[in-house]
Amino acid sequence: MTEPASESPLNEAEFVARFHRIGEERYHHRHPFHLRMHEGKLTRGQLQAWALNRYYYQSRVPIKDATILARSEDPSFRRVWRKRIVDHDGDGVTPGGIEKWLKLVESTGLPRSKALQADGILPATRYAVEAYIHLVRSRSMLEAVASSLTELFSPTLITLRVDKLRQHYPWMAGGLDYFQARLTQAPEDSTFALAWVVEHARTRIDQELALAALRAKCDILWAQLDALYFAYVEPGWPPPGAFRPLEQTE
Amino acid sequence: MTEPASESPLNEAEFVARFHRIGEERYHHRHPFHLRMHEGKLTRGQLQAWALNRYYYQSRVPIKDATILARSEDPSFRRVWRKRIVDHDGDGVTPGGIEKWLKLVESTGLPRSKALQADGILPATRYAVEAYIHLVRSRSMLEAVASSLTELFSPTLITLRVDKLRQHYPWMAGGLDYFQARLTQAPEDSTFALAWVVEHARTRIDQELALAALRAKCDILWAQLDALYFAYVEPGWPPPGAFRPLEQTE
Repeated sequence: MTEPASESPLNEAEFVARFHRIGEERYHHRHPFHLRMHEGKLTRGQLQAWALNRYYYQSRVPIKDATILARSEDPSFRRVWRKRIVDHDGDGVTPGGIEKWLKLVESTGLPRSKALQADGILPATRYAVEAYIHLVRSRSMLEAVASSLTELFSPTLITLRVDKLRQHYPWMAGGLDYFQARLTQAPEDSTFALAWVVEHARTRIDQELALAALRAKCDILWAQLDALYFAYVEPGWPPPGAFRPLEQTE
Repeated sequence: MTEPASESPLNEAEFVARFHRIGEERYHHRHPFHLRMHEGKLTRGQLQAWALNRYYYQSRVPIKDATILARSEDPSFRRVWRKRIVDHDGDGVTPGGIEKWLKLVESTGLPRSKALQADGILPATRYAVEAYIHLVRSRSMLEAVASSLTELFSPTLITLRVDKLRQHYPWMAGGLDYFQARLTQAPEDSTFALAWVVEHARTRIDQELALAALRAKCDILWAQLDALYFAYVEPGWPPPGAFRPLEQTE
């Protein structure tokens, strides 16, 4: 925290601007793995590793949201928040985000069973995702909700990503439905969450805790890409037992 | 698991041999970060990053052991296990392992306050260590104890490490007391833990769970070095907010 916590609260505009500054500095749109993805420099094997590992994160998102749901004593909050679980798990008829991510995995040429069994995912992926669950379970409700605010930044990244994936990896074009849905879901979610955080962070200490929670979430996303880059790009050393692509060339 | 869990139990010699095989394949003595350390190729800044991050792991070892202690209903087990907490926390007169690791941090030229505050440690270090606490809290007692069996392999690594640190980084010589103590503590601990695991893993399923717990622990140690290597060796990209060495040369 850069400012003393005893200061008076930031006004709303200042507080919201601080969230956006964190996004500019720490959101994973700046990560070298994504930069390579957008430049068309990733191999199919590297994209397989990304889809496989990121599936584990996706598969835990409804557990994260149910954890938050279970902590709320406010029916009106819970009615809004449960939408997130529906978005990911689907309604049994229309596929949800998890099913769509499995399609993405398949579009890279990996069987969905590999993702469903977390077969060969990096231990570091598991630890980062566990840390996210731990955060929403153990910190305050305010921090748990604030940690979701990376969704403020995801539409811009997703728009760029879909464009670049279509351009550089056209063989993945059939697997991009997940991102299309998120372009409308994420803004709905972040609009509600940001208003809720602004309303419930009444003191400067609360505000700094909420900002720290967003930084912590950015760290969690960043660490997953660090692990992918180290294992599959450079120097390219997957740990013992992790997925090894069949092809290593571009 | 490579063998069907429904098979009959391994005999003691086979079971113990399987633990040792896991160590040969997955213990972090094979990690490139350690190989570079032993070859004298690490810079002071890289050794600072190692000492700082590994301190976080050390600082959580007594919490891990107290978690195991709290799960045991057997006073004779607890009497033996509590020695580990004394070894790390000391008795208030003779310094324990944590204080000795702080000396190691200081020998690299970093202030102990940086370690005590976990200032600039890698998020991935935190996640891996949290995963260890989570393992001993949430898996069976048998798996929690089995996860400590990396100590079967540590004396060999420590003997080599102390030799190589003295040879290549003589300016660290005043910070090596931690390792000296572990050379007698670790064998005492692992002898008890291995006998306990052998006695309490009665079925083949139990045995395979215990073996998997040791693999999981090896992953936890390995992932910490992956993160250090990625941030501070190659390509050398510490995540936003992490420690950045002043000197990057050897």
